[in-house]
Amino acid sequence: MNLRLGILGGTGKVGTELLRLLESEFAAKLGLLSPPVIFGTARSAGKKIRYAGQELTVMDSSPENLKDLDLIISTANGEVSEKLIPTALRQGCKLVIDTDSFYRMDPKVPLITVGVNDVDIDWHQGIIAGPNCSVAQLIIPLKLLDLAFGLKRVVVSTYQSVSGAGKAAMDLLIDEARKISSIEGLAHKPERAVIDEEQFAFNVIPRISKILPNGYTKEEWKIIDESRKMLNKPDLKITCTAVRVPVLVGHSEAVNLELEKAFTLEEIHSVLKASPELKVWKNFEEYPMPHQVAGTSPVHIGRIRRDESLESGLDLWVVADNLLIGASLNALRIAEVAIKRGKI
Amino acid sequence: MNLRLGILGGTGKVGTELLRLLESEFAAKLGLLSPPVIFGTARSAGKKIRYAGQELTVMDSSPENLKDLDLIISTANGEVSEKLIPTALRQGCKLVIDTDSFYRMDPKVPLITVGVNDVDIDWHQGIIAGPNCSVAQLIIPLKLLDLAFGLKRVVVSTYQSVSGAGKAAMDLLIDEARKISSIEGLAHKPERAVIDEEQFAFNVIPRISKILPNGYTKEEWKIIDESRKMLNKPDLKITCTAVRVPVLVGHSEAVNLELEKAFTLEEIHSVLKASPELKVWKNFEEYPMPHQVAGTSPVHIGRIRRDESLESGLDLWVVADNLLIGASLNALRIAEVAIKRGKI
Repeated sequence: MNLRLGILGGTGKVGTELLRLLESEFAAKLGLLSPPVIFGTARSAGKKIRYAGQELTVMDSSPENLKDLDLIISTANGEVSEKLIPTALRQGCKLVIDTDSFYRMDPKVPLITVGVNDVDIDWHQGIIAGPNCSVAQLIIPLKLLDLAFGLKRVVVSTYQSVSGAGKAAMDLLIDEARKISSIEGLAHKPERAVIDEEQFAFNVIPRISKILPNGYTKEEWKIIDESRKMLNKPDLKITCTAVRVPVLVGHSEAVNLELEKAFTLEEIHSVLKASPELKVWKNFEEYPMPHQVAGTSPVHIGRIRRDESLESGLDLWVVADNLLIGASLNALRIAEVAIKRGKI
Repeated sequence: MNLRLGILGGTGKVGTELLRLLESEFAAKLGLLSPPVIFGTARSAGKKIRYAGQELTVMDSSPENLKDLDLIISTANGEVSEKLIPTALRQGCKLVIDTDSFYRMDPKVPLITVGVNDVDIDWHQGIIAGPNCSVAQLIIPLKLLDLAFGLKRVVVSTYQSVSGAGKAAMDLLIDEARKISSIEGLAHKPERAVIDEEQFAFNVIPRISKILPNGYTKEEWKIIDESRKMLNKPDLKITCTAVRVPVLVGHSEAVNLELEKAFTLEEIHSVLKASPELKVWKNFEEYPMPHQVAGTSPVHIGRIRRDESLESGLDLWVVADNLLIGASLNALRIAEVAIKRGKI
């Protein structure tokens, strides 16, 4: 099939990752016969991007340009999603896969993590959403353990890298780290390590996106809501604290689970190992860390141990490249599965 | 009373903090008439230290030097605790307050956080231990909430600063941050931010101290064991994941609680606010962060919100200066209370 693919937000951090994956692997998997059309903001329109030995010109993502496309993957922001996606669909595009949060909780839009709820792709009405990056890595072990043992309750604390807040945040962290680490005698007066109230470097920030009236942040509520939607368990008992840490790429999560059924750790290992999307770190002495996982595609699960404060309690440490598993890779996998299932 | 005070490990990070507190405030509170005797390793013996306008000479902490002391505060390591504390007691010292873990779980040794279980000071037999720094900040809200509402279960995820691992770790983090932040084009290739497998900078490490056969780390098990001992609840249901983050000073904790009794958030606020050791951040829009708390003595509690996955569930974010609340300040407060209660 000569699928005409457009990438909205193709010049951002996730868009760049996505183009790299397309070039190396997914153009073939999707059976693309021509390069994708790359859309950016008016500012980046006209820019050239190297792709598979060619030079592609970034197009302005205006409604009139979004024609003659079969499939769009959008890694742009919610405003773009709100305005341009309906336009593209009206103009004949068959499927838009959106990594933004705008459509995720819309009951007419399937929210998909490949390997978790692929079957929900079948009922799309033109839009499929990918989850928040913190949910994408969490939901795979949750789904497998729910199927095997039944999930009773989930408590998550996140350690999220700044790349989740975009390219500018990464530059800011590096810049702050450079400034602070060069302060003379810092180890003797660590209280000098403050250059900004909400600095990323040498700090942790227990607020990602805005605070809701119930005291949770929007980020935490996304983790709660989107997990419930993808597991198809609207009453799942789950709580969450989402925290930004001074890491460039790679989100980590301390996950505490209460399961319905009794288990052995060997059973947990084999349930998790069955998924091609997971890498299970069985040996207690080894554990995944974000600086190792940057650039790798599996979700890494380590520190798998019994929580003896519950009859069937389990503690996990879950780490993944948030840009890949949380956005670009999942979006391309959705496209691949949608094609296989004849849903485009 | 002319109390003769000795400080073991007086040249380390905690020892230095302790001397500063003694100078500014606690020499008067303890009624000291003479400066403390400062003990260090053989290597630092002979070194001069400024204290209250005088120059004190660091003494070698050999058994023969540990005479003529009424009170010793030890901030040295477990080997020193094991060997020298019994010697000092045999030689007439009336009370040793030890910040190391060596005696903490000894049933003959009270484990004290002032404001939590001061009454246990009364049954000391020469040694009083102070808790692990992660426990010291956690135990104050746990105790207050247990008294008011009954604790049913506790889930803790920590975000611990490198100062918990000593001065050298702080220097290492600063050095790594300096090296990595100066790598050209780092934001475009964040996978370059790896200079060492177990690096502190731009990484989080889900292992503090060694791994036990049950998969927990020794640090996590200290948090579990010591909380149970100080709350006098040997069967308290509690689990923990302890993680090192690239912060210099200040430990943070995401704490999820199940309480026995129903509560309102206003009741939680007023129970916590009653403690002089706590600063309660009631406004959701503000929250404590480690870079702010370095150098402050209260335990800061923010993000206080209801966890609706439980009938009486509560989420807290707890931050404190680990060197102060976790070691030096608590040790001096123990001395102060022991004197007041006539236990020295």
